[in-house]
Amino acid sequence: MKIVFIGAGNLATHLAAACKAAGNNIVQVYSRTMENATLLAGETGAEAVNNLEQIRLDADLYIFSVKDDALPAVVRQMPPTEGVWAHTAGSLSMDLFAARKAEHGVIYPLQTFSKQRKVDFASIPLFIEGSNPATTRLLEELAGSLSRNVRRLSGEKRRTLHLAAVYACNFVNHMYTLASEIIGREGLPFDLLLPLIAETAAKVTEMAPQAAQTGPAIRFDEEVMRRHLSLLPDPETKELYTLISKSIHKHSI
Amino acid sequence: MKIVFIGAGNLATHLAAACKAAGNNIVQVYSRTMENATLLAGETGAEAVNNLEQIRLDADLYIFSVKDDALPAVVRQMPPTEGVWAHTAGSLSMDLFAARKAEHGVIYPLQTFSKQRKVDFASIPLFIEGSNPATTRLLEELAGSLSRNVRRLSGEKRRTLHLAAVYACNFVNHMYTLASEIIGREGLPFDLLLPLIAETAAKVTEMAPQAAQTGPAIRFDEEVMRRHLSLLPDPETKELYTLISKSIHKHSI
Repeated sequence: MKIVFIGAGNLATHLAAACKAAGNNIVQVYSRTMENATLLAGETGAEAVNNLEQIRLDADLYIFSVKDDALPAVVRQMPPTEGVWAHTAGSLSMDLFAARKAEHGVIYPLQTFSKQRKVDFASIPLFIEGSNPATTRLLEELAGSLSRNVRRLSGEKRRTLHLAAVYACNFVNHMYTLASEIIGREGLPFDLLLPLIAETAAKVTEMAPQAAQTGPAIRFDEEVMRRHLSLLPDPETKELYTLISKSIHKHSI
Repeated sequence: MKIVFIGAGNLATHLAAACKAAGNNIVQVYSRTMENATLLAGETGAEAVNNLEQIRLDADLYIFSVKDDALPAVVRQMPPTEGVWAHTAGSLSMDLFAARKAEHGVIYPLQTFSKQRKVDFASIPLFIEGSNPATTRLLEELAGSLSRNVRRLSGEKRRTLHLAAVYACNFVNHMYTLASEIIGREGLPFDLLLPLIAETAAKVTEMAPQAAQTGPAIRFDEEVMRRHLSLLPDPETKELYTLISKSIHKHSI
């Protein structure tokens, strides 16, 4: 399949590499900045462009992977092309393409991507939606060649999944950041927490997270929580500690 | 070494099994409830008791692993014994033993324990503190036979470490719980999130969590965040979402 990537960020970088590895032809990479376009184009043997007027019109698939709030403008500026237009955003409707392109859809990979970190694409859940059966099948076939974990999902459910992913990934990672700050203030290395972090993630492969909960908040150990609050440096951090602890206690079983 | 366990909870269960596997003799297990005492005693070949007056006086080490707020009362009620008294609590000072027992200390395992889940004790960081050099060495030797990751740590630093662990484990697990609720409302299985959860935890073995952050809050994608808020069912959950998102944005680099 001839594929054009519109966008060259973290997600586009990993998805383009996986598409190429599955035997597809990445013909072009567009990015607003030529530097980013060139970087990803170089990795995938594609042509780099930084002007939407230079987009090739004969590809089978155009994958839009830009910041959510930039996508509507990019779609408006796209020239009319052959093929299918699809985006990769969890919380955007596929309808944003409707006025410009009848054959459109979504490939949403449920994963966190950083450029410098390799991921096993085959295990990433990919969620597909298409504007008609042929488009859905085309996206599904591509997705099936990238991952063994593909399913169709409506835009509404995808939005909910994306919200859940914010908790399971971004909010979780922020808890790691706060832990790293706390431990860093005592001159202790973040690595000390890695076995705990790994076990906390591994536990929920076997038990529901609600059943896996431990610690002072679930036991409602007020004395420990009071002492913890006294160690936190500012009102904002204290508020976050209190709010999450209350929520844990409310969810105790 | 002859060891008595005071307490038969999650931590005591895993620690007693590891002590026995390392060749120690678990002579007694005390719990307020005979059922819990019998369960752990059965697993470790120990005698079960539910009355502190029945505690053997000739052990080398008494490991106190009860709820933090129950510990002071248990210590007061203990008969005078031979050996060393140590607790396993992250946020309690070892001084709580001082009035009753000169040889005292702490073995603090930085891990989350649930009875039904096996853990690899050898990789768990164990933090040691003792009231005198001989006691510290005794605890350190025991710890060294259980784990390859042992270090001495003052009570003050241990308290900070425990606070960091609340973020890296309990708060993280609560984010999993909230994600599971969100996804469950749409009838989607929690398992869909497991590759994302595993990768989020694996990423911070290679990158600092601050550098690993992705998602709408770090990009300050207000439109996505607004839509997410509209999907959340109650003011409390909305408040938590907003507060964590703000904190992520504040920590962006």
